[in-house]
Amino acid sequence: MRILVVGSVALDTVRTPFGFREEILGGSATYFSLAASYFTGVSIVAVVGQDFPEEHIDFFHRKGIDTSGLERQSGRTFRWKGEYGFDLNAARTLDTQLNVFGSFNPRVREEHRTLKFVFLGNIDPDLQRSVLEQMERPTLVACDTMNYWIEHKRESLKRTLSQIDILLINDAETRQLAEETSLMKAGRIVLSWGPKTLVIKRGEYGVLMLSSKSTFGAPAFPLEDVSDPTGAGDSFAGGFLGYLAACGATDDSSLRRAIVYGSVMASFNVGEFGPDRLGSLTYPEIEGRYREFKKITHFDDI
Amino acid sequence: MRILVVGSVALDTVRTPFGFREEILGGSATYFSLAASYFTGVSIVAVVGQDFPEEHIDFFHRKGIDTSGLERQSGRTFRWKGEYGFDLNAARTLDTQLNVFGSFNPRVREEHRTLKFVFLGNIDPDLQRSVLEQMERPTLVACDTMNYWIEHKRESLKRTLSQIDILLINDAETRQLAEETSLMKAGRIVLSWGPKTLVIKRGEYGVLMLSSKSTFGAPAFPLEDVSDPTGAGDSFAGGFLGYLAACGATDDSSLRRAIVYGSVMASFNVGEFGPDRLGSLTYPEIEGRYREFKKITHFDDI
Repeated sequence: MRILVVGSVALDTVRTPFGFREEILGGSATYFSLAASYFTGVSIVAVVGQDFPEEHIDFFHRKGIDTSGLERQSGRTFRWKGEYGFDLNAARTLDTQLNVFGSFNPRVREEHRTLKFVFLGNIDPDLQRSVLEQMERPTLVACDTMNYWIEHKRESLKRTLSQIDILLINDAETRQLAEETSLMKAGRIVLSWGPKTLVIKRGEYGVLMLSSKSTFGAPAFPLEDVSDPTGAGDSFAGGFLGYLAACGATDDSSLRRAIVYGSVMASFNVGEFGPDRLGSLTYPEIEGRYREFKKITHFDDI
Repeated sequence: MRILVVGSVALDTVRTPFGFREEILGGSATYFSLAASYFTGVSIVAVVGQDFPEEHIDFFHRKGIDTSGLERQSGRTFRWKGEYGFDLNAARTLDTQLNVFGSFNPRVREEHRTLKFVFLGNIDPDLQRSVLEQMERPTLVACDTMNYWIEHKRESLKRTLSQIDILLINDAETRQLAEETSLMKAGRIVLSWGPKTLVIKRGEYGVLMLSSKSTFGAPAFPLEDVSDPTGAGDSFAGGFLGYLAACGATDDSSLRRAIVYGSVMASFNVGEFGPDRLGSLTYPEIEGRYREFKKITHFDDI
C-alpha cells in the first residue's frame, strides 16, 4: 500500500571526520521516501524553491517516488549545514535557512486523501494535524518530532499524539516529552497520551519498541565504518513503515520485522554521504543484511 | 566446574538519586562470585582487613562460596565511596582507600591450582599474570580491566591479554585500548592481541560480543527502576562465566546464552542497593527472566 509522507526536502552541507559535501540532497521526506521506496510506493508532500535541481526530481522518479505533491514555490530551498565529531552521535547545526520551508502549509492532493499509510515527518505539530484533517481514515499514522516542538509546542504536540498510531523519537526526546528520567517509565507515559506503539531510537545503540502488549529491543547493525549519520532516523522510519505498508500489517510480529528492516536501511544509509547509498541498493542486499541481523541477535532456548 | 575468581572485596558507600548506603559489602570479586554462585561453585582469592564484618563471610558461605582463599590481613579493608546522578551511567568516585588491597599479592592455594575456569577481576595486570602463573592449564580465562591500567600499564596489560581467552570491558575502554574510534575496528584490534572473544559492555544499552567467527548483540534487559548500578559489570561477568563453567562449554551458542545470563544477573543486581538482590534470587526467577529476554529480542524469519 502506498505511503503519504509529509516532511522536508532540503539541500544539506555536511562535514564529518570522513569528508565534506556541499548542497547535497537532504531532508526528512527525502531520506524517508528513498528508504521506503524499496518496499512500496511513496507520495511526497513537501516544498522546494525555484533553485531546487531538476536532477534530484529525476532521482526520486528513478526510485518510483511520486513527486506530484512536491510544491515548487518562488524563493530558495530549505538549507541545513551541520558537522559531526568523531563520536558521530549528534550533529552540531552550523546554519539553518528555512526559506520556502518556513511558510510550508502542506496540501494533500485529492488523489492522495484516501491513502492508508501516513508518515508525518518532523514539522510543526499544528501542520501534522492539518495533514491528518485532509486525509480520509488512514489505517496507520506514524509520526516523528523533535526537542524544539516538545519545548515550544507541547500542548499542540500532545493533541497530535492523540491522533496517531506510532511515534518514533530518540531516547532524550522520550525523557524530555514525559519529563521522566527512567526511559521505560517515560515510554509508558507517552503511550498513555495516544500512540499505540512507541519506537525509541538510540542511534548506534539500537532501538526499543514499546506497546501495551509487547517490548522489543534490537541493537544497531554493527558497522566498522560510518561516514555520515545524516538521515539515519528518517531512513529507519522509511524502512520501518515501508515494510508495514508493503504487508498491510500492524501485528506484533510484523512490527518487529519492520524494526529490523528500518535498522537495515539506516545501516546502509550511514555508510555513505547523504542519501547516495539509498539510491544504489538492491533488494537482495537488504534481505542479506536482514538475515545477518538475525544471526547477530538470536540465541537458543534453555 | 568450579571458578577461581581474583579481585577485590570491599566496603562501599554509595549515593544514588534513590538512596544512600554506608559501608555495605562491595568489590569486584563479591559481585562476581554472588552472581556466579547460582550456576556453579566459586572460590575467591582476595584480601580483607581485620575490620571486615564476619556477617559478610557468613553471607558468602550461605551462597556456597569458598572463602578459603580470602586472606585476612592486619589493617583496614578496601573502601570505596561514590555517587551516581540521574542518568545512572557513570559513578563519580568521591573517595578510595586501598588499605590492605594496596599491597594485595594474590596467592592461589594448592587445591585451587587445577581449577579450569578463572576470572581475573580488575586488578594490576602484573598481578593478573602472577595468578595465571600459579595455575595449571586452565581451560578458560576471562579478564576485566579499566582505564587506569590501559593508561598506566599498557604493555603489561597487553602481555596479560596474550594469555587470556575472553576480555570483558566497556565501549570507552575498548576504544581507549585500541586507540581507534570505530568500535568494531577497535574490537578487531583488541582481538588481534590474543583474546579469542571480546565482550563489550555498554551499560543500559546492552552488550556486543565479538570473535573472529561471530558477532552477537543484545540490548540490556529493559528496567523501569534502577536503584544502584554498582557491580553491574561484575554481576554480568559472574552470570556469564558461571553459566559457561556450569556447562563446561565455550562454543558460540553457549557464549550467546552466557551473555543473556550475564545480562539477567546484572538486571537483577541493579534493581536494589549493593549486592542484596544477588543474595535473595531463586533459579526460577533467573530462568523466567532469561525467557522474557528471548521474547524481547527475537523476531521472525522473512
